[in-house]
Amino acid sequence: MAFSSVLTGTALGRAAVVLRESHCEQQSRRRRQAHICCSSVATAEQVRTGLKRNENIGKLQAGYLFPEIARRRRAHQDKHPDAKVISLGIGDTTEPIPKLIADAMQKAAAGLGTLAGYSGYGAEQGRGELREGICNAFYSSCGRKPHEIFVSDGSKCDIGRLQMMFGCEQRVAVQDPSYPVYVDSSVIMGMTGNYNASTTSFDNIEYMVCQPDNDFFPDLSKVAPTDLIFFCSPNNPTGAAATRQQLTELVAFAKKNGSIIVYDAAYALYISDDNCPKSIFEIPGAEECAIETCSFSKYAGFTGVRLGWTVVPEQLRYADGSPVIADFNRIMTTVFNGASIVAQAGGLACVQPEGLAEMQQLVHFYKENADILRQTFLDMGFKVYGGKNAPYVWVGFPGKPSWDVFADILEKCNIVTTPGSGFGPAGEGFVRASAFGHRKDILEAVERFKKAYGKQR
Amino acid sequence: MAFSSVLTGTALGRAAVVLRESHCEQQSRRRRQAHICCSSVATAEQVRTGLKRNENIGKLQAGYLFPEIARRRRAHQDKHPDAKVISLGIGDTTEPIPKLIADAMQKAAAGLGTLAGYSGYGAEQGRGELREGICNAFYSSCGRKPHEIFVSDGSKCDIGRLQMMFGCEQRVAVQDPSYPVYVDSSVIMGMTGNYNASTTSFDNIEYMVCQPDNDFFPDLSKVAPTDLIFFCSPNNPTGAAATRQQLTELVAFAKKNGSIIVYDAAYALYISDDNCPKSIFEIPGAEECAIETCSFSKYAGFTGVRLGWTVVPEQLRYADGSPVIADFNRIMTTVFNGASIVAQAGGLACVQPEGLAEMQQLVHFYKENADILRQTFLDMGFKVYGGKNAPYVWVGFPGKPSWDVFADILEKCNIVTTPGSGFGPAGEGFVRASAFGHRKDILEAVERFKKAYGKQR
Repeated sequence: MAFSSVLTGTALGRAAVVLRESHCEQQSRRRRQAHICCSSVATAEQVRTGLKRNENIGKLQAGYLFPEIARRRRAHQDKHPDAKVISLGIGDTTEPIPKLIADAMQKAAAGLGTLAGYSGYGAEQGRGELREGICNAFYSSCGRKPHEIFVSDGSKCDIGRLQMMFGCEQRVAVQDPSYPVYVDSSVIMGMTGNYNASTTSFDNIEYMVCQPDNDFFPDLSKVAPTDLIFFCSPNNPTGAAATRQQLTELVAFAKKNGSIIVYDAAYALYISDDNCPKSIFEIPGAEECAIETCSFSKYAGFTGVRLGWTVVPEQLRYADGSPVIADFNRIMTTVFNGASIVAQAGGLACVQPEGLAEMQQLVHFYKENADILRQTFLDMGFKVYGGKNAPYVWVGFPGKPSWDVFADILEKCNIVTTPGSGFGPAGEGFVRASAFGHRKDILEAVERFKKAYGKQR
Repeated sequence: MAFSSVLTGTALGRAAVVLRESHCEQQSRRRRQAHICCSSVATAEQVRTGLKRNENIGKLQAGYLFPEIARRRRAHQDKHPDAKVISLGIGDTTEPIPKLIADAMQKAAAGLGTLAGYSGYGAEQGRGELREGICNAFYSSCGRKPHEIFVSDGSKCDIGRLQMMFGCEQRVAVQDPSYPVYVDSSVIMGMTGNYNASTTSFDNIEYMVCQPDNDFFPDLSKVAPTDLIFFCSPNNPTGAAATRQQLTELVAFAKKNGSIIVYDAAYALYISDDNCPKSIFEIPGAEECAIETCSFSKYAGFTGVRLGWTVVPEQLRYADGSPVIADFNRIMTTVFNGASIVAQAGGLACVQPEGLAEMQQLVHFYKENADILRQTFLDMGFKVYGGKNAPYVWVGFPGKPSWDVFADILEKCNIVTTPGSGFGPAGEGFVRASAFGHRKDILEAVERFKKAYGKQR
């Protein structure tokens, strides 16, 4: 029996029509003959479908930033097997989940093994008491309501679902530098042009430069109007927290242009400065032009547990007057099935008074780390930003390519950082150090930094 | 300070420009004045953004099927507060998770509260040992490899991510009837035309009719070629499991047309018939034209825990020769952040020999339920399908609208079923009864059915 292959592509010339017998041994032989790895290009016996590849995915450059850093870390470790590498890279939490919260998850998991404690599908939008708890804990002073809170498996995933909801016809603005997912998901959805190697940016995205000379807040008089504005405060990677005045300007700018702000507040609890709002909804009128996404990841160490939420105010409307919340609800019920109930049990403990206190304590610990890092770089004479209202310290290496700095720090200190250029063109010349780490590792990292770079200044 | 609103829409006429003071009290007053519910249409003081609504979402009809059923159930319960309603509706698992598996999750959750047991971000694609475990447990005989297995928070979510990967330019075929997510996600991505009220179907989707007269397998000689073919076996809702011969035909059909089959195997463990493959990859050549998605939901009672997987063979290629697995990996790393590590700990227990045995036992229990339901309807003289290799029994009510039958059963028996037409036009005249339930509820349901419908035949 012969299946003809479909040969409509042109990129690879030597694809061949394959005659095939009817059982598994044949398959095995072929696999042995043409061992095709995920990232390699096959040339022998390649059979293709007729599907046109989504060309938007083809526009993406290399891999997502953090897998690339992980790859370089592995290569370094292979080269130096005895090196004790410290990661100040991806920003992954290291401290145990507060006992009260872990206990709640343990209890929920145990309950699932009993008739009384078992439950199946929950509401796709999350448990009612959790939506209410999040609303009370974080939005009581700014008038949001429980039904506007959609519980999820995290902000990164919600950004993907928001983009699916908005569709391909929107134009996007991002802070430059910014968390790569805003740009990458916009590219995937077809909202952008091609990657422009000369500017190291994508065409048809509005990059809002955030650098020391503008206090890391964009000069909005120079920003072209767009449909969507992704804005993260406290910012990943720069660590800058926007002030009330700045966010009031941003909301006015969005309203003037009819834009929707997608506000990423994942680090809001790290804010100490009373002049910096913890939610965009503290700004009057934001409920008519903003969506906020947030997460327990960096508050309760839930990076692996996966629990976040997105707030879509009922007042937020498309140009045709239809409510955005109704469409987001449709997306959440169609391509999502609720966050894990074990994670939700943990979330419910997080938003109780004791849980909130435990989270504050954990946040405080990482903020102390940030302070140690920040002070170290300052003492060595570097230009240092962030680290006060955020778990990230943003260190300037003017005139030096960030991947070179990344490589130099890895080589000299066995420390993984994140190159600023990975967050956008305006991140070039900076490196991000994450404050997520055991205290002993942070202190050890500080010693290594001093030894390698202390004398240069 | 005044913000001007953006009034570009025309659907609602009375939107007003709102002058606003600068603090929260004002917001509260406005909310009280114009209490806008998520699904209602606001007319007073409505401020709109300039964003064009994604018109594809507007094409969707009403809500997703199961929330609509839940709404009707609530209305019934409100009308009859004392009625003890039994649900044979959404297909939600009811029995506790096998102890061995719940214990593994409990242990993982407790561990998160300790330094030794804590872990943060895992690989977006899932833990290596779980990918290997799934591969060994379910795909050892058909040559799949661990790196082709992407662990996720469930098949429903993976279907959304697959659609995002494929993009808007693909044309889709679905079984009719079928799980609503295939159609709805295709509509959202813009792969379809408008809803056609006269045919109760969407334009530009190829509906492959599956009814008793074709043994619930489409007549492929009448099916137009498409880019994607969604195929579910054992089928939800009809309960039909495709035979080896039928799947061989399907693979040949896909290869002839250059299509990719998205094969939903969520109920594969329910298959008793040796002549029905448990994976599409048992069919030679499927690795060049198929993706398979599966889940622990209906095997281990994980509907609330959230854990599934999708298999993308490295041999699967787009027309340009590029590997589909690389693009799916990019999607998973960009808009997903891994399944909950607690759920993954449970999954790891599932794929151990003892866990597999526990799952088989649980599946056997629900299959007994299916048999009880099936036999009951047969005894009453109904035309009954499915229920042998699937947890769903598909009951024919020729000539009667399924929503009417649904309403009649709810009214007479206080039993929730699922109307066949909710799964597509060819589901009209059928009702699906789910076998997920406590045994006592299934037996009670059977008595009620006999009382209400037994004498009619």
